[in-house]
Amino acid sequence: MTRVGVNGYGTIGKRVADAVAAQPDMELVGVTKTSPDYGAEAALRRGYDLYAALDDRVAAFEDAGLDLAGTLADLLDAVDVIVDCAPSGVGERNRPTYEAHDTPAIYQGGEDAAIADASFNARASAPIRNADSLRVVSCNTTALSRLLAPLDESYGVEKARVTLVRRGGDPSETNRGPINDVVPDPATVPSHHGPDVNTILGDVDVDTAALKAPVTGMHTHSVNVTLEAKPTTEEVRELLRGETRIFLIPEDAGIDGAGTLKDYASDLGRARGDLWENCVWEESIRVQGRDLYLFQNVHQEADVVPENVDAVRALAGDVSREESVARTNETLGVGIDSLLSDGGAPRDQVAADD
Amino acid sequence: MTRVGVNGYGTIGKRVADAVAAQPDMELVGVTKTSPDYGAEAALRRGYDLYAALDDRVAAFEDAGLDLAGTLADLLDAVDVIVDCAPSGVGERNRPTYEAHDTPAIYQGGEDAAIADASFNARASAPIRNADSLRVVSCNTTALSRLLAPLDESYGVEKARVTLVRRGGDPSETNRGPINDVVPDPATVPSHHGPDVNTILGDVDVDTAALKAPVTGMHTHSVNVTLEAKPTTEEVRELLRGETRIFLIPEDAGIDGAGTLKDYASDLGRARGDLWENCVWEESIRVQGRDLYLFQNVHQEADVVPENVDAVRALAGDVSREESVARTNETLGVGIDSLLSDGGAPRDQVAADD
Repeated sequence: MTRVGVNGYGTIGKRVADAVAAQPDMELVGVTKTSPDYGAEAALRRGYDLYAALDDRVAAFEDAGLDLAGTLADLLDAVDVIVDCAPSGVGERNRPTYEAHDTPAIYQGGEDAAIADASFNARASAPIRNADSLRVVSCNTTALSRLLAPLDESYGVEKARVTLVRRGGDPSETNRGPINDVVPDPATVPSHHGPDVNTILGDVDVDTAALKAPVTGMHTHSVNVTLEAKPTTEEVRELLRGETRIFLIPEDAGIDGAGTLKDYASDLGRARGDLWENCVWEESIRVQGRDLYLFQNVHQEADVVPENVDAVRALAGDVSREESVARTNETLGVGIDSLLSDGGAPRDQVAADD
Repeated sequence: MTRVGVNGYGTIGKRVADAVAAQPDMELVGVTKTSPDYGAEAALRRGYDLYAALDDRVAAFEDAGLDLAGTLADLLDAVDVIVDCAPSGVGERNRPTYEAHDTPAIYQGGEDAAIADASFNARASAPIRNADSLRVVSCNTTALSRLLAPLDESYGVEKARVTLVRRGGDPSETNRGPINDVVPDPATVPSHHGPDVNTILGDVDVDTAALKAPVTGMHTHSVNVTLEAKPTTEEVRELLRGETRIFLIPEDAGIDGAGTLKDYASDLGRARGDLWENCVWEESIRVQGRDLYLFQNVHQEADVVPENVDAVRALAGDVSREESVARTNETLGVGIDSLLSDGGAPRDQVAADD
């Protein structure tokens, strides 16, 4: 039984906490908050022990009437692994504290790769040995790694070129923009996302260009991969259909964007309408010569959550990667098998002239 | 046991179906869809019997691999009450079918009031006697009725003036607008919403002005009510706090808009992040002389759902209004009691000069 704490019960932290609490081989010891807000209240309602992330905030929780189990230092002394879900950059500030308590730590992808012994993705990163800290790569890097790993294994990736149309902020972030523009961000091309993929897949040549759009639901990737082999469109569809953390959106399901995708997730009974899988538009998958094209949507609040669970097991070191992924998928319900007929052969084989 | 069918398993229908299925005194016989899309698939995954809303669509479901239990006519013959959740105006087209099958029907607020024997709101409408059909008023009218009824009972409403800043479309509706404007809709003032409130509260004088904004989460109402009495701000806050279908958003909870409100609903464990309650910003409630002001948010996908459940019981006619509301609230979990301290006296009494 691995005892786990979550430092930072925000967008990612609350989801990681729920996912950890659902694992039979893990115990969620507690979560931290900096402020006694609605999220802190919700943690208590869920029965999670609440710790003050900062010592000087204890009185604020008391004033608000929310009971604390202690402070971050108490939590660190009680756990085998701490999952840092603080905002980008705050993980770096937290690192000396974790090290002073000799507590193995998992960081998020907003931190520099140098923060941890290794960067992590359950599908694609190299085996982890003797690490005291891991960094789960960002939502975008996670999605790209899941996609490029099977393509590289099966066909060889000569070069990947990806445009990331990123959401401006999360649904709960009213202080983010843009509200009416599409902003090159960064305007320098290629963006940092390609090199970040290389912290997972060292040998894959990938360039990325990143934009921000006035949406909060999901990121959208427009992907081109020049392959070394020449598979058919249907072969690529079948390859990706076989990946448990990739969901091929059926062509005639009536799912046309992030809104309907998340509505479908709620229809499936998923808490928070979360989509842990890369969501690839089935009809967008198309091979022309050696060039593969596709669109995929990425739920920025959710796709790293199963990866964090697997990262905890990678640090604890007592089960294989495959066994961990299977357990995580089973307990959370990762993977969607649509009941809708797949429509048979792809359209380019049925009506090549249309 | 009242046997219930839902005709139209869309935004409202899927929620009404779940709510009916949760009632110990009701049986959800089945739901209809016009197309074999992701929603139809989701209904089957939930174990709901699926019926074709239109006879000529049966083959489409078969082609998609989705099993049908029959058509609308079969469903109508098997239920005691049909809840029409078709798009606005389609309910009127469906009415002759329901009447031909002699099936009591509940319609939604997008239909004209004349469609049914009476319009319905569980908190505010007149007692229902010998009705064969009811119309649950729209999300906005429901919210206004819930708010104005207790104010009129306690203080007398001399005149209410409300600006409705309505969401442009639901999260799953990518074909709606505006995307970058605030549109008077209708530009004629007062709008039809005020008269619609009078189908519930016949004697309350209320004028409404309606806009559409580029948001999908919730409607926002800016409310002014000139009262006949002069309660204090705190008395009004206490009055509204006592209404089970009104949630007073605590002042320091960090909830600042529809995004955080729905995030909080998900934190509470609510499927789909649904908010069945009027969400009134506690610090917005202010009495100046006899003028009351407040902001409230209304989840257009959700607030009519408990009302539909109570409307089924009103048609079935075997329990009192109060008993029905209590059962519905208990089974669904309607009503939010925040754990956060309420902060004591309102700010206008603590620091009148600020």
